[in-house]
Amino acid sequence: MRELMVNLGERSYPIYIGEGILNDIASLFDKHGISRKSPLLVVTDDHVAQHYLNGVMSSLQNGGYTAASAVVPSGESSKSLAMLESLTAKALEAGLDRKSAIVALGGGVVGDLAGFVAASYMRGIRFVQIPTTILAHDSSVGGKVAVNHPLAKNIIGAFHQPELVLYDLSTLQSLPARDVRSGLAEVVKHGLIWDAEFVTWCDNNAEKLLALDAEALGYALYKGCSVKAAVVSQDERENGLRAILNLGHTIGHALEAVAGYGEFQHGEAIAIGMIGSAKLGVRLGAPEDVYTVTRRVLGKCGLPVRLPEQYDTDAIMKAMMHDKKFGEGTVTFIVPTAIGKVEINKQIDVTMIRDIVNELKQEADWA
Amino acid sequence: MRELMVNLGERSYPIYIGEGILNDIASLFDKHGISRKSPLLVVTDDHVAQHYLNGVMSSLQNGGYTAASAVVPSGESSKSLAMLESLTAKALEAGLDRKSAIVALGGGVVGDLAGFVAASYMRGIRFVQIPTTILAHDSSVGGKVAVNHPLAKNIIGAFHQPELVLYDLSTLQSLPARDVRSGLAEVVKHGLIWDAEFVTWCDNNAEKLLALDAEALGYALYKGCSVKAAVVSQDERENGLRAILNLGHTIGHALEAVAGYGEFQHGEAIAIGMIGSAKLGVRLGAPEDVYTVTRRVLGKCGLPVRLPEQYDTDAIMKAMMHDKKFGEGTVTFIVPTAIGKVEINKQIDVTMIRDIVNELKQEADWA
Ligand SMILES: NC(=O)c1ccc[n+]([C@@H]2O[C@H](COP(=O)([O-])OP(=O)(O)OC[C@H]3O[C@@H](n4cnc5c(N)ncnc54)[C@H](O)[C@@H]3O)[C@@H](O)[C@H]2O)c1
Ligand SMILES: NC(=O)c1ccc[n+]([C@@H]2O[C@H](COP(=O)([O-])OP(=O)(O)OC[C@H]3O[C@@H](n4cnc5c(N)ncnc54)[C@H](O)[C@@H]3O)[C@@H](O)[C@H]2O)c1
Ligand SMILES: [Zn+2]
Ligand SMILES: [Zn+2]
Repeated sequence: MRELMVNLGERSYPIYIGEGILNDIASLFDKHGISRKSPLLVVTDDHVAQHYLNGVMSSLQNGGYTAASAVVPSGESSKSLAMLESLTAKALEAGLDRKSAIVALGGGVVGDLAGFVAASYMRGIRFVQIPTTILAHDSSVGGKVAVNHPLAKNIIGAFHQPELVLYDLSTLQSLPARDVRSGLAEVVKHGLIWDAEFVTWCDNNAEKLLALDAEALGYALYKGCSVKAAVVSQDERENGLRAILNLGHTIGHALEAVAGYGEFQHGEAIAIGMIGSAKLGVRLGAPEDVYTVTRRVLGKCGLPVRLPEQYDTDAIMKAMMHDKKFGEGTVTFIVPTAIGKVEINKQIDVTMIRDIVNELKQEADWA
Repeated sequence: MRELMVNLGERSYPIYIGEGILNDIASLFDKHGISRKSPLLVVTDDHVAQHYLNGVMSSLQNGGYTAASAVVPSGESSKSLAMLESLTAKALEAGLDRKSAIVALGGGVVGDLAGFVAASYMRGIRFVQIPTTILAHDSSVGGKVAVNHPLAKNIIGAFHQPELVLYDLSTLQSLPARDVRSGLAEVVKHGLIWDAEFVTWCDNNAEKLLALDAEALGYALYKGCSVKAAVVSQDERENGLRAILNLGHTIGHALEAVAGYGEFQHGEAIAIGMIGSAKLGVRLGAPEDVYTVTRRVLGKCGLPVRLPEQYDTDAIMKAMMHDKKFGEGTVTFIVPTAIGKVEINKQIDVTMIRDIVNELKQEADWA
């Protein structure tokens, strides 16, 4: 079992990564100050519930905890104020008090939703993440929690750090293949912004990751979480450095919006976006391997490396201009300067981005 | 003009109290770091809007700010998730970004609601309070913001401190008399828990306060805010000391619930509750004047000092047992030990409270 601290002063918390952790939940909860005197609420979605809810509930009950559970429909649409209201009702009915904790068992959707319930219930109670997707290695570090508004994603939320994160690798075995690939995009991103050696490791171990090899996955998620933790420790409230986590996301979010939500998986869209960023980096003077390596590693992870021609460049540019990263008229981009290194460049010419988007349509498919 | 700092480290903020401050909004905003580059959203209710919204909007616009406004129906029912959703839409339409501020112009309802919009919009943006009720001297200090859930009051919220508070005494002139009296209950409470001299001052100046004498009001609100600020500075997140602010509230909340919300004003209910606490204090050994002075000052402020017989003691006791201050089975009460001094007593026998509730029905009316 690997252990990692996210250092945030008095809000620091540990992440445990390993196989079979779900059996030890109660002792880890106890070790990290989750009280047995106050009831818990376990929040999950209907896919995850089928596989893991009973196990988690009996682990907790056998360990002396009182816990209620709430199952929301799987998918992004559960990140809503309506669901916040119904989970708050569940918490009230289960008698949660200020010393209670809310437990998120699932992917990023459940983590963001349950985390915001925890952030707002009685103005903030404890929160535990039990991520069950690869993408959730990203969402479970950093304390960003939110629900969506019909007019904008993640617009109603908070910064609310968990007490602990329990990552049981065994749960990833049931994850659909497309979610595996999509999650790997953020793993690779964490290498690209911070750690060249880890990018080389991904290049050499992509096949093991796709095959859900436990040792390889454990290492990759440990490294991914470590990078995210390092960045977040330096900039908890997203005032500066944290922006580098958006590598590939400006183009990626625009693609998701233009294609219609659900068409691209998030990881697929940002894979294309990261290739765009790599091309931009090379144009601005980075060595050529920034592009070739980025493309190769993402391709090996089974992610798209070409933008399908049917998506209109104008529409993509328009969607991008609404992205909040374009604050106060300046066009800011996260630009790689080498493998494992990026800069926050506030002076990027919009026409250069347009060229890049067009070029992304001319990329070869991955062999 | 009086000025007061709420000391909360990097979240410290000033409160300005005086007549005609609304004319100087723009320069005070500017002085305290509210940016002119990002749009503002002024939130108010339909009563307050009639009197003050145009003035505030033109003050801001003349001072170089871009501001949109949103008017919610007056009353407690606006503290809802539905209103959070529609105000978030307003904020998005008005183009609010991370450097924008939300301005609450109104009483505690508008402050709590707009404050929670500010706390959650883009995971937290700046917030300015412009209180227009006497009660709001209480709600504008301490950073507690929230909306209600159909099953519980103030259950969905945050701690989110404002950037500044602008208290224009002129706005209090249009306040209905019942809201004046109700607001004074919290003013007196701040004396009772912290400052015996101020209680004496209230005893001598109650008539001026009821007549909305600007000098007396300014002083009383300054003192009330000062006490609240002192308590909150020592316990921002309500882990201990802050509980003393609940003097009279355990009985008070039960009365509000049993009578049906809206029957008692909040200040009326806690006035009766504070007399109950004073009686309890005397029973437990406090000098007799704890009761006589508490009763006299509240009576002079036109507040009820007797519990009408029609409210069933059993129903009140039952409502009280659901109050969250009864954590983990122990009955905790804020008990006066002298005028200006209280203790947090966790050992109060429920039957003693029942006796007190019954006795409250036998009190004489205020002459
Ligand atoms: N808070 C953050 O910092 C942050 C960062 C990145 C993404 N996010 C958010 O994360 C969300 C996406 O997360 P996600 O990709 O994990 O989505 P998700 O939670 O919807 O999970 C993807 C799908 O896999 C299913 N699933 C989850 N675990 C499973 C398992 N072990 N076995 C079988 N099926 C399983 C789910 O039911 C769902 O259908 C988005 O809402 C995004 O905004 C948040
Ligand atoms: N956040 C906190 O720490 C805290 C503390 C105490 C109370 N509260 C909350 O405050 C709320 C009660 O506050 P309130 O008593 O100010 O209620 P309120 O905001 O509803 O105002 C009372 C009434 O007066 C009207 N009004 C307000 N200002 C006016 C003016 N200047 N002229 C004419 N009419 C005016 C309003 O429209 C309303 O009808 C409750 O929701 C309570 O939960 C919060
Ligand atoms: Zn992402
Ligand atoms: Zn009160």
